[in-house]
Amino acid sequence: MVLDLVRMNKILEVRIADRLAVVQPGVVYADLQGRLGRDGFFFPPDPASGKVATLGGNVATNAGGIKGAKYGTTKDYVLGLEVVLPDGRVLRTGSNCMKSVSGYDLTHLFVGSEGTLGVITEIRLKINPLPRARSTAVAAFDRLQDAGRAVSQIMQSGIVPSVCEILDRRAIALLRERTGADLPAVAAVILAETDGYTPEETRFQLEQLVAVFQGSRAVQIRTAATDEEAERLWSARKALGSVIMRSRLNFLVEDVTVPMSRITALLEGIAAIALKYKLDFVTFGHAGDGNLHPHVFYDGSDRAQVEKVQAAVTELFQLTCALGGTLSGEHGIGLDKAPFMGLEHEAVALETMRSLKQLFDPQGLLNPGKMGLEA
Amino acid sequence: MVLDLVRMNKILEVRIADRLAVVQPGVVYADLQGRLGRDGFFFPPDPASGKVATLGGNVATNAGGIKGAKYGTTKDYVLGLEVVLPDGRVLRTGSNCMKSVSGYDLTHLFVGSEGTLGVITEIRLKINPLPRARSTAVAAFDRLQDAGRAVSQIMQSGIVPSVCEILDRRAIALLRERTGADLPAVAAVILAETDGYTPEETRFQLEQLVAVFQGSRAVQIRTAATDEEAERLWSARKALGSVIMRSRLNFLVEDVTVPMSRITALLEGIAAIALKYKLDFVTFGHAGDGNLHPHVFYDGSDRAQVEKVQAAVTELFQLTCALGGTLSGEHGIGLDKAPFMGLEHEAVALETMRSLKQLFDPQGLLNPGKMGLEA
Repeated sequence: MVLDLVRMNKILEVRIADRLAVVQPGVVYADLQGRLGRDGFFFPPDPASGKVATLGGNVATNAGGIKGAKYGTTKDYVLGLEVVLPDGRVLRTGSNCMKSVSGYDLTHLFVGSEGTLGVITEIRLKINPLPRARSTAVAAFDRLQDAGRAVSQIMQSGIVPSVCEILDRRAIALLRERTGADLPAVAAVILAETDGYTPEETRFQLEQLVAVFQGSRAVQIRTAATDEEAERLWSARKALGSVIMRSRLNFLVEDVTVPMSRITALLEGIAAIALKYKLDFVTFGHAGDGNLHPHVFYDGSDRAQVEKVQAAVTELFQLTCALGGTLSGEHGIGLDKAPFMGLEHEAVALETMRSLKQLFDPQGLLNPGKMGLEA
Repeated sequence: MVLDLVRMNKILEVRIADRLAVVQPGVVYADLQGRLGRDGFFFPPDPASGKVATLGGNVATNAGGIKGAKYGTTKDYVLGLEVVLPDGRVLRTGSNCMKSVSGYDLTHLFVGSEGTLGVITEIRLKINPLPRARSTAVAAFDRLQDAGRAVSQIMQSGIVPSVCEILDRRAIALLRERTGADLPAVAAVILAETDGYTPEETRFQLEQLVAVFQGSRAVQIRTAATDEEAERLWSARKALGSVIMRSRLNFLVEDVTVPMSRITALLEGIAAIALKYKLDFVTFGHAGDGNLHPHVFYDGSDRAQVEKVQAAVTELFQLTCALGGTLSGEHGIGLDKAPFMGLEHEAVALETMRSLKQLFDPQGLLNPGKMGLEA
């Protein structure tokens, strides 16, 4: 049997009254959103790469995205899976129901397992109604600590923003240079969005966030009065990915994640590592769930630089784990981070993961080496 | 080593800025809510038994409750666990972060595993800010189909109520008889609550629900203008449990769950089973996530009645599974439902569950017989 997953790209069922969508793994995220949007619904975990990301990939990596602070990640929406096991048996997990406690949760064993336990061939997703109102604010900070404190205080304010992104000085500089973005040359910028059903609701939430920014010494705060203004505020953040892609240097993107109160410590640590190794780090990410994406630029033909990058990234992982964090918030472990699993997980956890790999795939047929869990 | 889980009742850490609470398994749900409430936060999956339910139990059974439609169940809030495995090793799963994709999701293997894989000794929970406004409505329906259609249409309306409870004719009659509740003698009543940050937001949502009720031939709709009125509307529903407990008959409570569009079919099927076996069924539950609790009353000293109840419950499970449902939405399988697992799960799923039980607990030391997964 040959499974051509990319061609398995049908939306099999959309059952709005049951808050359920059933899709094949090759369906592209944006195509599902388009279909659900016709009924006023959406699948919340929005990866920045939604125009190309397939839902099979999203499930296999438990993809996150910019709305994680309020809406969680892919795992929070997977109700059930069809999986082909390495021995050819077809396993159906979960149910069509919003709630089920009937035997072990096999579904979540496969979500985020990076294709190492089975091949996902069908996905049942819980879907949500689209919010009907949004408000946006951008705050600029002269000191990293002030931005980090603002993130912590947002979390304590009782407001959960639908988006809470942070950009560091280098990310801001890159956008100013390459896109002429209308951002001040500061240490950090936070972009926040609130959502809900009514404009009163989203404005109420935004006012609380603005009060936090004011109390955290923001040097500039802008709020969008219209959708067009909001779009302008967001355009800079959205351009970052392609600006980086167009760079003539090689780059490595990391995905370290810490409890939200440690965001400042992580940002300061990244700056210290960049200084120590004389490397160019551009950092931005989803501050609302503690997930940062440091991008390290280097010349791949320069062996000394490649080695420096490796040493710097090792320090980054050590720092993250020392701060109570995780190696990956949404990108996964793959091959690159496999050697670092021991920094985050105790021996018993790694032994347990290895025994699961052995149970499901004793011959090591699936995605060899990924996560480093082979016997 | 002896683990006295009930005495392990300390709230170890509350880290509001990190949206995190760390507790021992013996902490009672209401005690955690009290502690979190001081900071304006809560742990959303509210079991009706929160005054006595321990968090260890909530996690082991993946407890749900009346707020599931909007807030999900316990599994959606467990970030990590400490578990003592049957061989005495201590396993720490998950992380302190809102997001992590770093190896297999061991956490959710234990959530809902009913103590059959390991003994949970510490729990890390994600917590949410408390909503600041609420609105309540009660709608009465002369026909079951109209109430069922209202539930489906609420789901399609784009509004997710924080609570959406349904009571059938027998539940209403019981309340009218025993508590003098101010409810009309109708086929079904739906109680709904919306929540948010502002009164405008909750009223906006409630207006959409009221429009659905009007379009579904509700014969009476009441909305609460004040907290006191809301409390009066809710008091009848809250009294149901104790009214049933005080019954002089024995009763069995089930926990069947279906996709929301099948609620009418399930309610009609329950009425037909009650008629066929001449048994008294009182049914109410969490319509917003398709989870109903039929209570069957019987005289435990009457052998013929006990056998009738067994036959009726078997039919109830067959009906539920035929409707695409699950044996249990929030109570779990335990011993009683173990023989019915094959109605819901295919052979490969049961084999996979058995192999996990074998992997973690080869000697069958933990909670023998629960879920029926021993070799």
